[in-house]
Amino acid sequence: MTAERIFNFAAGPAALPEPVLVRAQAELLNWKGLGMSVMEVSHRGADFVAYAEQSELNFRSLLSIPDNYKVLFLPGGATLQFASVPLNLTQPGDSADYVLTGSWGKKAKSEAERYITVNVAADTAASSYTTIPPVAEWALSPDAKYVHYTPNETIHGVEFHDIPDVGDTPLVADMSSTILSRPLDIARFGVIYAGAQKNIGPAGLGIVIVRDDLLGHARRETPGIVDFKTMADSDSMWNTPPTFAWYLAGLVFDWLIEEGGVQAMEQRNSAKAAKLYACIDASDFYTNRVDVHCRSRMNVPFTLKDPSLDQRFLEESKAAGLANLKGHRMVGGMRASIYNAVPEAAVDALIGFMQDFEKRVG
Amino acid sequence: MTAERIFNFAAGPAALPEPVLVRAQAELLNWKGLGMSVMEVSHRGADFVAYAEQSELNFRSLLSIPDNYKVLFLPGGATLQFASVPLNLTQPGDSADYVLTGSWGKKAKSEAERYITVNVAADTAASSYTTIPPVAEWALSPDAKYVHYTPNETIHGVEFHDIPDVGDTPLVADMSSTILSRPLDIARFGVIYAGAQKNIGPAGLGIVIVRDDLLGHARRETPGIVDFKTMADSDSMWNTPPTFAWYLAGLVFDWLIEEGGVQAMEQRNSAKAAKLYACIDASDFYTNRVDVHCRSRMNVPFTLKDPSLDQRFLEESKAAGLANLKGHRMVGGMRASIYNAVPEAAVDALIGFMQDFEKRVG
Repeated sequence: MTAERIFNFAAGPAALPEPVLVRAQAELLNWKGLGMSVMEVSHRGADFVAYAEQSELNFRSLLSIPDNYKVLFLPGGATLQFASVPLNLTQPGDSADYVLTGSWGKKAKSEAERYITVNVAADTAASSYTTIPPVAEWALSPDAKYVHYTPNETIHGVEFHDIPDVGDTPLVADMSSTILSRPLDIARFGVIYAGAQKNIGPAGLGIVIVRDDLLGHARRETPGIVDFKTMADSDSMWNTPPTFAWYLAGLVFDWLIEEGGVQAMEQRNSAKAAKLYACIDASDFYTNRVDVHCRSRMNVPFTLKDPSLDQRFLEESKAAGLANLKGHRMVGGMRASIYNAVPEAAVDALIGFMQDFEKRVG
Repeated sequence: MTAERIFNFAAGPAALPEPVLVRAQAELLNWKGLGMSVMEVSHRGADFVAYAEQSELNFRSLLSIPDNYKVLFLPGGATLQFASVPLNLTQPGDSADYVLTGSWGKKAKSEAERYITVNVAADTAASSYTTIPPVAEWALSPDAKYVHYTPNETIHGVEFHDIPDVGDTPLVADMSSTILSRPLDIARFGVIYAGAQKNIGPAGLGIVIVRDDLLGHARRETPGIVDFKTMADSDSMWNTPPTFAWYLAGLVFDWLIEEGGVQAMEQRNSAKAAKLYACIDASDFYTNRVDVHCRSRMNVPFTLKDPSLDQRFLEESKAAGLANLKGHRMVGGMRASIYNAVPEAAVDALIGFMQDFEKRVG
């Protein structure tokens, strides 16, 4: 952390790796010695095309993406994909299964209902989204065109630590808040999508990983920019892509490779989460209500014993250089989002503050 | 121009005002003293919300946008709006009129045909898109839900210098490559949309100006992020907006205000275009084929007498610090895009080079 920077626990848009920002800053007015910003060059020029290709190769390498999957870099974020998934994978009258383990799954379902009948295969609302039922208990339907779930729920702090086995039905996952945080068996999925603004880069970019056999079935009324085949056939340049966001994502991929890839990220993220949950569990003052088996490594919500202390906690933590710890209004209390770019030192500083705060006011 | 920068005539993504880039660079790691990049803060936090509101106010002020119009800042660019316009303004079975004066109008038409019957009210293909017929000659249809046209065609260098009178039918305009280049009578339009990457900011952002009475009629299958009413009701934050692109657009608006607004831009752009066309017209070596009454102030295509000299022209101009002059493959030759951010000094340098080149090899 440079002198002027603080530790940022925002849920998204979220902290970016500082070396990435330093590099982007250094070359902001003159990229690759071209005398122009990367924002000012044509997406169809040789320099940007080469950069885009290399960034895709790096992303594929990081996640060991098999050859029978396409990677798309699309404008917008995950919310646009809430619509594009049914537009690409279904026809009118079709249905799909949705598993709801938090707010984002519910939003995905609402958007899908513009196009299809949604079967809710599981819904943990009754637990206030603090658990994940085993797949054996899901009410999967035989005619579903796909099964959609949210491997990590940013607001509720609930994460799948295994990929559910749903048989031959294509599995579709909104990985916005967990992608690149650990290794992933891509071959288990039909479609993976993610908004960039948590573990990839700035807001305004979405990445889609889609199995080849799912291309080419979009409804006629699918806007071209979210027709998976149109975008795959054009290397995501059917329209002008969000070039700066793509560039920054590429810098994040470079950084991840230098840091040891998603294997190293998993170790780091596990260690960060373990010590933060240990701090919470060791105290009667802080509480995390999520079942231990599905606690998120990325988003750690916790409440204070006395909610009237929330404001003081927020003010004092901010003064201590720990920003954006306020929990989502649906859950209340605090939330520490500890994505790849949040260093272990930030978690250590947070734990130190939490212990001190409890000692002083608990 | 700082020492390392060159003059950039790219058609889009295009040159940005250098003071904007300098400021973005200075605060890239620490925005507003928050200890975070603007890319790292929540779009719902007080700082970004205040910035977004002020940027909209500045944009409204620059274009004197009446109170009965909403301004939306949307992910994606103009291509997404090619679909969103019919999704928001029509129902199945409806039709609209499209005026085709170049490639972008044709693309807008193709995308609209996913949703509606398109009446081609005018098409200047026979002239190779070098003219604009008077509105009296357009085949407007009485039942059209809207009339769509492209006030400036980036590839062909054809620009409307007056707003066509189409009666009470809502007029819809793709202003991607002309917005903010001159004053505009917004009240003449139903919908104006523009991708950012020419006169507004980086790629990945679209701005829509929509009259209130056209809100609330979107088809059920309209993705939420392009439902004009959904986005208007949420101040363009129904989803996570492309915050960095929005921020940079705000810096461009600040710069425009400091420079004297769109009135000053119009004077500057007229002067730049006039001297470049004068240079072309004074020569037998360079040719611009567009009718004088509809020549673009933003994109100036021109051909060399001997196309075998094109490559040499491009190499030598680049060596002289004049980048991205290659014409679009559909038109050939050269194209100088001279948006707001391209200074008069760039045009002077180009003219100097052109005259010298002609003298040496013509």
